[in-house]
This record gives sequence, structure tokens and C-alpha cells, in this order.
Amino acid sequence: MFGGMSNLWKKSFQEAFEGKVSFSDSEDLRRKLASDHTEDLVFMPGLVVEPANTQEVQEVLIWSNANGIPVTPAGAMTGLSGGALPVEGGISLSTRRLNRIICIDERNHQVVVEPGVIVQELQEAVQACGLFYAVDPASRGTCTIGGNLAENSGGPRAVKYGVTKDWVLNLEVVLMDGTVIQTGANTLKNSTGYNLTALMVGSEGTLGVITRATLKLLPWPRHTALMLVPFGDAEAACRAVSEIFQQGNQPSALEFMERSAIELAAEFVGIAPPAMDASTQAHLLIEVDGFEPSALMPQLERIYPAVNACGAGEPLLAEDEAAKNQLWRLRRVVGEAVKAASTYKEEDTVVPRGTLPELLEAVKAVGASHGFESICYGHAGDGNLHVNILKRGVSEEVWEKELPVAIRAIFEKVVALGGTISGEHGIGWVQRPYMDLAFGPAELRLQQAIKDQFDPKGLLNPGKIWPVEVSKI
Amino acid sequence: MFGGMSNLWKKSFQEAFEGKVSFSDSEDLRRKLASDHTEDLVFMPGLVVEPANTQEVQEVLIWSNANGIPVTPAGAMTGLSGGALPVEGGISLSTRRLNRIICIDERNHQVVVEPGVIVQELQEAVQACGLFYAVDPASRGTCTIGGNLAENSGGPRAVKYGVTKDWVLNLEVVLMDGTVIQTGANTLKNSTGYNLTALMVGSEGTLGVITRATLKLLPWPRHTALMLVPFGDAEAACRAVSEIFQQGNQPSALEFMERSAIELAAEFVGIAPPAMDASTQAHLLIEVDGFEPSALMPQLERIYPAVNACGAGEPLLAEDEAAKNQLWRLRRVVGEAVKAASTYKEEDTVVPRGTLPELLEAVKAVGASHGFESICYGHAGDGNLHVNILKRGVSEEVWEKELPVAIRAIFEKVVALGGTISGEHGIGWVQRPYMDLAFGPAELRLQQAIKDQFDPKGLLNPGKIWPVEVSKI
Repeated sequence: MFGGMSNLWKKSFQEAFEGKVSFSDSEDLRRKLASDHTEDLVFMPGLVVEPANTQEVQEVLIWSNANGIPVTPAGAMTGLSGGALPVEGGISLSTRRLNRIICIDERNHQVVVEPGVIVQELQEAVQACGLFYAVDPASRGTCTIGGNLAENSGGPRAVKYGVTKDWVLNLEVVLMDGTVIQTGANTLKNSTGYNLTALMVGSEGTLGVITRATLKLLPWPRHTALMLVPFGDAEAACRAVSEIFQQGNQPSALEFMERSAIELAAEFVGIAPPAMDASTQAHLLIEVDGFEPSALMPQLERIYPAVNACGAGEPLLAEDEAAKNQLWRLRRVVGEAVKAASTYKEEDTVVPRGTLPELLEAVKAVGASHGFESICYGHAGDGNLHVNILKRGVSEEVWEKELPVAIRAIFEKVVALGGTISGEHGIGWVQRPYMDLAFGPAELRLQQAIKDQFDPKGLLNPGKIWPVEVSKI
Repeated sequence: MFGGMSNLWKKSFQEAFEGKVSFSDSEDLRRKLASDHTEDLVFMPGLVVEPANTQEVQEVLIWSNANGIPVTPAGAMTGLSGGALPVEGGISLSTRRLNRIICIDERNHQVVVEPGVIVQELQEAVQACGLFYAVDPASRGTCTIGGNLAENSGGPRAVKYGVTKDWVLNLEVVLMDGTVIQTGANTLKNSTGYNLTALMVGSEGTLGVITRATLKLLPWPRHTALMLVPFGDAEAACRAVSEIFQQGNQPSALEFMERSAIELAAEFVGIAPPAMDASTQAHLLIEVDGFEPSALMPQLERIYPAVNACGAGEPLLAEDEAAKNQLWRLRRVVGEAVKAASTYKEEDTVVPRGTLPELLEAVKAVGASHGFESICYGHAGDGNLHVNILKRGVSEEVWEKELPVAIRAIFEKVVALGGTISGEHGIGWVQRPYMDLAFGPAELRLQQAIKDQFDPKGLLNPGKIWPVEVSKI
């Protein structure tokens, strides 16, 4: 099946696994795992392997470890930092067949899943039992729980319910030498040894392959209310975010969108944007949730004075489920809409949320001085601002040369504000050049030393997270 | 100042640090750090060192690392697993002088503290700004935030607000070689590199000395309502715990106490216990909280049918703050009261909460078969049951020989239920013999390998967490 010198390892893989584990070197399949949603990067894997259970993952990793073949775990390829790109070739280990919801434990409010389960399918399955898995990335309809675990994904509800790490009780992980470990226990509290669970979550598939996760659930607060609040000034909208919390409110989502973000999204979806004054520069999308419908409007009514004090215009209240879905749809497609509009580079900045106005001002100032246009939106309640820098009229030369300088200037401001360079997308492949801003050499060396304990040969998702200088230490 | 061969290192320390860093070998001071609240263990440190800032911690660790002297970080010595006992002698590094609240950041809902700050002082300082630090161990009036970070402490409010790890954004840590690291950023979300923050929390002072912590705060939900609910059957009380959550309620505390626990506590405090029927075997102490006083009673009214369906008796509602304080005082002193009543051994079991009735049944069965009496109480809403095994009439020989067998039998059941051997006290010194039940050799080796990266000479809080066989690998 496989020819050529460089393909000897594939022949050897075929001999070992033919008829035992599902794999393919079809160009179509390899191409599917060669790109994610990060810019326009393409890295072809040599083989796509699709194990169907933990034992098959073990066997594939043992073989790869013995034969020195890189292995990159891959889910739905919706990542935004290139975390699942097989940048050194070798095997893309797809979780496509590891897609079972093993058990919804209603008594203990827990669910056990395999990594290939689609997040929205998980949400809907537990909702059918009156339970709630809150983590809700924009790509929830396609992204997998395994990818969410790898990147410690967030989403709009993180402001009230936390990010992926806050929902993980226990993981089954296969290490590169084939050892299967359990990182914790199926309990809400755990002070037993080092927190290997938290170490795995967000490690971007570099420490082991997660084959099973026990996740916490909550009773489902099935009622929500949603309003879109316009501001004449984007920085005033950011100030309002802080004010909402100062007044003791706890929205279940608190999203920021510049005017251009919502306009692009509406154009992309093919609908009219929400009615807005000519002076509107930004919006906050504010959701509250609860178990009692009657408790929702009072929550929004408490929030409104806080935003009004910061100069908000008349809020648009979503009158019914269809109106809510339409507003959420606009918010969810902003990323795709920007991508469709122009070559761009997205930065996943995160700062202490009260400093958002300073961050936004700095982003615009850096853009102005380098001649870049940017569209900003994101999870303002967490201080997590997605900064999309557009290529549009910029020449290839300026884009190549000036963009890294501009990004570095933005990240320097982020770090000066107490923030860091990724809130929920991960470092993956594309943010590595900026890791020196987030961590000093000591922290980077410690992380690398931990990696070496889990994967001494450096074969699992190689080339990720650390800048080249550090990863060569 | 120091004489004798075995004290040569102390003389050398004195020469290096006299007039620079505060230290002492007074027997009184050393004795204070020789014991914690765990059983009646005594391990005298050779020296007590009390650095006043990060640089002094650095200098002490550099010297100790160079001279091969063990260093055990120590807070208020309220630990319940012996985590801060200097079991190999050397230096007890007290955080007593590292006791500043550096900054309450009201805009960002964060606080920066040194490790020696007493938890209750932190709570009260932020409450004065309308903010809330929820972690609330029974020892909050004396325990330090550094100790809470080391052991990943919980307390009654964990059921709604999580444990210490859920409140930590960023840590400044001095490693044994004197390197100062920042584990994260001051942000609510972070997907930048490995989660060193979560690795540090709960590592029991074995990886580094935390010198500064940035903690998350929330707006203070200052109103609470509290009721004490009696049950004729302790297992029915445990079943009711599960039912409360099934019905979609979110109490801010949900504590379980056997009848004997509350009686001992009342006797210890010197007050009459709450009126109870002769048939009462256990109580649930149920608290709800919120921003609006008017929302509290409806919450309790929704909870009552759930417990009533499990056979609860007439609830005792705390009518005012004094009544609430008295009920909480009884709950908080149970540990001390048990200690005053008999030599005992406390186990910090934790299971998926729906399985509490099975755990309680197993504890009683094991006790019966080995001839031990036990008093059980704890954070039932988290599935975290403190099992106190009393010596009372048991002979020294039986206590020594049978107790470890009985504990192992209890922990085997805990693990079979999906639980683990410590929910919030840590492994420290006393639970090491049972770590093989919580983790297999692969997980233990990985933890030890991580330890080696942070502290290659094994000088920082030696002798803790791992069973001897593993720690000698």
C-alpha cells in the first residue's frame, strides 16, 4: 500500500496494524487533519490513525515510541492556535472513533465521555436528563470534548461557570510509552497527591492522549434572558463590564463586540444587523440564567443601571427563543465572518477585566502606528478579548514584517496589565514566538522538564507550546 | 549560640544569616512548629527561620540547598495530615512574618496576599470592600492562606464556591535553588503553557515556597439563612443530600453530623445541644446565601420537600445571627471536641456524593468488625465525610495492630465507590501508607518525577505524600 523510502515507517506500521487498528494514508483524509481553523496553515500527516478504544491507543503509542514516529492527537480540527496540526508529520491520531458517552450518572451529577464526543451532543444528552455541561465554545456544534480538554476551552458561559478545567474530575490518559494512568478520582474535591488532572487540561496533547474524561454536571438552569446593549464608545462598553460586577451582578454571559464585528457577522449570515444608531460603536451582549423564569427580568433590571451609568443606549431585549438564537448566532459566527472577510491574525488576549478599556485603547494605538485595522470582540466578562488584525489593503511585505512587531507590542501591554497571551485558545503552533512574554526562562524550563517526564523522546505533538530556543534545551 | 556536632549546620547557618534573617533555635519556638492538629505527632525542627520577604526566602533556600539541609514550610500548624511537620528535622520555614495583604484590587475583584495571612483576616479585609473570599475551613480564625494553598483546603462553602484551587489565579513561588517563578497570570482564564498554578496548589509545600498569591474575589453575598434538619437514620440524611441537588437546589453549605458529633461539640463548648428527639441519629446543617434577604426563605422552602421526602424531622431554623453563629460554632468545633474526648484517627474520605449512604454503611460495618467506634461528620454536599475513629476503650495493642487494617478497608471501599483518600486535608505524613489505593505505580512515579524537577535533592518538605517504597525509587 505505501511506497518510497520516506514511507518505510508507514509500511512497517501497516504490517503491525493491518486488520487491527483503523488507519489510512488517503490524501483526502490526511488533508482533513492537515489544517484547523488557525489562519491558513497546512501540515500534512503521513498517516491518519483512528483507534477505537484505549487499548488500540496504547498499541499505537507503544509502536510510535519504539519507532520514533511523531504522534499528534487530533479532534475536529476547530482549534485556533494550531495545537492539533502535525507540524512534524508522522501520525495524526484521530479521536473520531472514540466518540461514546459512556455513562450519564444522574445520581452523582457526572458524565463519563470519550474524547471524540462533540460538545453540543454532550450538552444535549445531559440536558435530556435535566443536567448541564456549561462549557460552550463558539464551535460547540463541531468541536470535541477532547479538543476542549487539550486547549482548556472557554466560551461565553465561562464568566459564570468557568472553563473546561473547572468541569473535569478525572481523566484516563495513555502516555507515550503505552502506560494508562488515572489522573484523579470521580470526586468534587481532591487533595490526594499532585493535581495531574489540572496538569493535563490545557497541555495541548503534549503529555498524553486522553481516552476518557469524568466531567462534573450541574442541574440545568434552563431559562435565560438576553439583551444587546449599544454604546457610543467601545471603551465605555468595556468600563460597563467592570461596573456590572462591581454592583454584584452575575450574568451567565457578558460578550463584547465592536460595531464592525456585528456588522460583518450579519453580512456573513445574510441577515440585517440589529437596528443601531449611527453613533453606536460597540455592543455588550448580556445573558442571565436561572431555574425560575420570573427571576430573570429582575436580574436584567439590576444590570441595566450599571451599564446605563457608563453611557449605554437603549437595550434590545430578545423577546423569544428565536430572537435569542439569532443574537447568539451573530455572536458565534463573528470568527468565521472575519475569516471570510480578509486574511487575518487572531490574538486571544486576556487581562484582569477592569483593565479592558486600557487594553482596547492600546490595541487601537498599536494598530494605528503599524497601519493595521483590527476587529475586537470576545468574552469581556472574563477580560478575554479576541483581537483580529486584518490584512485587507496591507501589502504582503508589510504584513510579514510588521505584524509580529505589532503583535508583540499588544502582548507586551497585555502582560503589563497582569494578563497573558492566551485565555482559551492555547499556544499551539502560532503563539510560540511570544511565550517569552508570558513566562521567563525558569518557568519555561520547568514546563519542558515536566514534558520530558511524560514523553522523554518528545514524540507526542512535537513542536508545540515552547519557542524553539527553549524546546532545544 | 549553637553547640554540639549535630549542630554544626546550625552554626554555619548562624554565620551566614545572623543579623540578616530572623531565626531561632529556642526550644519553645521549635516546639510550636513540631506539632500540628494531626493526632499527637511531634517532630522537632533544628531551627525555626522566619523570613520577612521573598528575597530572604530565596537566600535561605539557596543556603539550605547548598548545605543539604531539609526545609519544611510552616504556617499556623493547624494541618490535619502532618503536612507541615519537619519529619526529617532541619529548618522549619515559618511564614509568620510573610503576613501582609499586599493589595485589594476592587476594580478587578482580586487580592494579592503573602502566605502568612490568616484566612479570617483576609475574609474580613475584603468584606470591608464588599468582596468575598469564600474558602472557609473550620480553622479559619488561625489557619493561614499559605497552609490552605499547600493542602488545597475546603470547608463548608466549597459545595457552592469550590476549594482553594478554584480561587487562585497566580502564585509567586521560590524554588529550592532560589529561583523565583510566577506560575500564571492575574486573569480569570489562562490557556498559556502548563498549569503550574494548579500543580502548586495542593502540593503540600514539596515543590516550592509560595511567597505571594493572587486570589479571585466575588461580590459578597452577605445574607444567609440556616436550618438544622434532624433525621432518625443517618443513611437517610446522606440520601437527602443527593436529593437536594437532584431537585436543582444550590445550598451554600450542606453539612452532615452524626448525633454523637453534635452532642460532643455542645459538651465541648459547654452549652445545651439543640433540642432533638430521642430517635434523632443525624443532622444536616443547610445554609443558603444571596444578595437579597427576601430570596433566602424561598430557597429553604424549596429544599425542605427534598429532605422531607427522605424522612427528615422538623427543621430548626436559626432565627437570628446569634442563633446562626451558635450552630456554626457547634459544627466548627466538632474536630476539636472529638480530639478532646479520646485519642482518635481522622480520615478525610471523599466519594461521589450520591454514594455517601454506602460509604457510611461501610464505615460502620468496618468499625463493627474491628471493634472501633466512629464519629462521622463533614461536607456532605461534596461527598467529603470526615471519619473519626475513637480509641476510647480499645487496648493499645489492638489500636496499633488493627487500626491500619480497618482504615485500609474503609479506603478500599472509598476507592471502589470512585472516591479517594483525601478531599481537603492532604496526604502529608499520616496518609502515605494508603497512597497505593489512590494511585498505581505509574501515577506515583510521575508525581515523584515532577517533584525531582522542582527539587532535585529532595530537601523541600521531605518524607511527605509518597509511600516510602516509591519515594526511594
